[in-house]
Amino acid sequence: MPVSPIEWIGDHQGFLRLLDQTRLPDEVSFVDCRKPEQVFTAIRTLQVRGAPAIGVSAAYGVVLGLQPAEDDFDQALDATTKRLAESRPTAVNLFWALDRMRRIAGESSGRPFAERLRSLFSEAQMIEQEDREMCAAIGWHGAPLLSTMQAVLTHCNAGALATAGQGTALSVIFEAVKQGHRLEVYADETRPLCQGSRLTAWELVDRGIPCTVICDNMAGWVMRQKRVQGVVVGADRIAANGDTANKIGTYGVAVLARAHGIPFYVAAPSSTFDLRLVSGDEIPIEERNRNEITEPWGRPNAPAQAGVFNPAFDVTPAEFIAGIVTERGVISPVNAETVRAMVASPATSQRRESAAAPLH
Amino acid sequence: MPVSPIEWIGDHQGFLRLLDQTRLPDEVSFVDCRKPEQVFTAIRTLQVRGAPAIGVSAAYGVVLGLQPAEDDFDQALDATTKRLAESRPTAVNLFWALDRMRRIAGESSGRPFAERLRSLFSEAQMIEQEDREMCAAIGWHGAPLLSTMQAVLTHCNAGALATAGQGTALSVIFEAVKQGHRLEVYADETRPLCQGSRLTAWELVDRGIPCTVICDNMAGWVMRQKRVQGVVVGADRIAANGDTANKIGTYGVAVLARAHGIPFYVAAPSSTFDLRLVSGDEIPIEERNRNEITEPWGRPNAPAQAGVFNPAFDVTPAEFIAGIVTERGVISPVNAETVRAMVASPATSQRRESAAAPLH
Repeated sequence: MPVSPIEWIGDHQGFLRLLDQTRLPDEVSFVDCRKPEQVFTAIRTLQVRGAPAIGVSAAYGVVLGLQPAEDDFDQALDATTKRLAESRPTAVNLFWALDRMRRIAGESSGRPFAERLRSLFSEAQMIEQEDREMCAAIGWHGAPLLSTMQAVLTHCNAGALATAGQGTALSVIFEAVKQGHRLEVYADETRPLCQGSRLTAWELVDRGIPCTVICDNMAGWVMRQKRVQGVVVGADRIAANGDTANKIGTYGVAVLARAHGIPFYVAAPSSTFDLRLVSGDEIPIEERNRNEITEPWGRPNAPAQAGVFNPAFDVTPAEFIAGIVTERGVISPVNAETVRAMVASPATSQRRESAAAPLH
Repeated sequence: MPVSPIEWIGDHQGFLRLLDQTRLPDEVSFVDCRKPEQVFTAIRTLQVRGAPAIGVSAAYGVVLGLQPAEDDFDQALDATTKRLAESRPTAVNLFWALDRMRRIAGESSGRPFAERLRSLFSEAQMIEQEDREMCAAIGWHGAPLLSTMQAVLTHCNAGALATAGQGTALSVIFEAVKQGHRLEVYADETRPLCQGSRLTAWELVDRGIPCTVICDNMAGWVMRQKRVQGVVVGADRIAANGDTANKIGTYGVAVLARAHGIPFYVAAPSSTFDLRLVSGDEIPIEERNRNEITEPWGRPNAPAQAGVFNPAFDVTPAEFIAGIVTERGVISPVNAETVRAMVASPATSQRRESAAAPLH
């Protein structure tokens, strides 16, 4: 049974237990969050990361912010959601989850405190549960895409550690393996924070799936040597035309994949789409601290006087993406029309409906 | 005055002082080699690295091996050159330098010990001096290629630390700057051993040239954002058709450069060409220890059970290379004919001649 990266302990008065992913792979330890500020810090410092997991954590963070707010519920709701929204700028699931919590709070306006708190707790649980179902559905829709491949490359971590369920990109791989497909995975290390070597490799090893760790700069050579036949990655935000923001380096992998005639797939729930954005040019890109590059593990790795460029994400244009695997099905080819057809919905509660879709 | 990575102290009975490049950028310390085995270790552990610097070090290593060999000169020559040849398999300058030392030893066969030792010492000094001149000539031939660029990307370290002179790829940059060209350099970190962030950035900062360190996986995004207009890298071995082995990741950068319409240049002395090899397919690629990837700076960065692929080099096909800058001039376009025209020579002593070429 894999370790859960996100676990709520107790009832609506309980607390959020997060696996501290910055300590992996050498240490499995947890952070107990009893205040939203702790959730903020956990998201900001990447103790919890991955777009879907950030969304689920933020939803529970709202519950934590309202537990002591019997006398100032709406004020606390406002302060908590605003603060959590500042934790990271790129992953849209964060804002989507906070919006859902605000909507539910609005619907319960005027009701007793305990009822309002319970309804928010219930919504956070639902977001978590939907995430599990979405992960499973993504795996189910995506697995056939890998059927002719012996090995695939992935970048960063879009696995169980990035979600409440079994992941997005890795869910596709897990499902393919579950269906009896022998598959090897090349995991890009993913500097600067090495989510690929630390987290993805850890998950794959844990499940007995053959995994080879490479440095990011080896991906092109691995493709040239025909060691992989496909690429599958997650996403942090997808624009209406299919342009996809994901961990820095994803764009380079996509360009390399095209140059080698290898299909490049994105796997993400529909909550990752931000249809207000016409293209990826409008996606805000977080830049992180230079120390992540210059002092990995506390030792100088570059001169202090050197400049540093440390974008956390990049944007892969839709034209490089062979398909986007969602919980509703695979978008392919990827363009504004096919994206709209799959993820736009007249109902405002589209995501709740979509969560059930794979069961049909 | 930049620190010299290679310095012979004393006369033919002296010793070799190497800058320990594994300690940079946070520590400037030296390794004194008085036996060839110490040179072997210094090359193997990358205390000295860079194809030209390896060649010069190996030549001096031969001198060290013969200093105590008054009674068994030829046997010691054989043992020393064989051992040093095993230090690293890819950089051809190593074998080229050892061949030169063996040839000189052969020419002095039958002469007194002291004379033979002095002639070998003199040859090693000549290899070092030629390397300086080659570096300068490469800079002089290459600088005009960058004249329209505001910023260039480089990978690994092909600077003064990689040679006895001012480098190959960085020599081109240094010369351009010396000629008054304002140029910024993006330095790929170059995992696993980070020669880009540790060494290249250190050299650039030292000379006051604006330098921005990026992780390897950011190169594509930097090109997409038009932050660089060209790429220049060094080489460890170049086949007769221009296919170029260089630090792992170079191939990926070349593919990315082409995809973005950015010229990709290689800078290397003619001693880097191995005309016996028809194409890059024949270049042996060193694979190094998994620990370089899984335990950078001594802390686990990947699970112990994960597989690792750690090639030290890759091969960039000639078709991706806009030009190869040698001390004799620029090879462009790059193919078997243009390579032969520039570096093949009817004289067996071509490299000695070529060293003087830039002075004409």
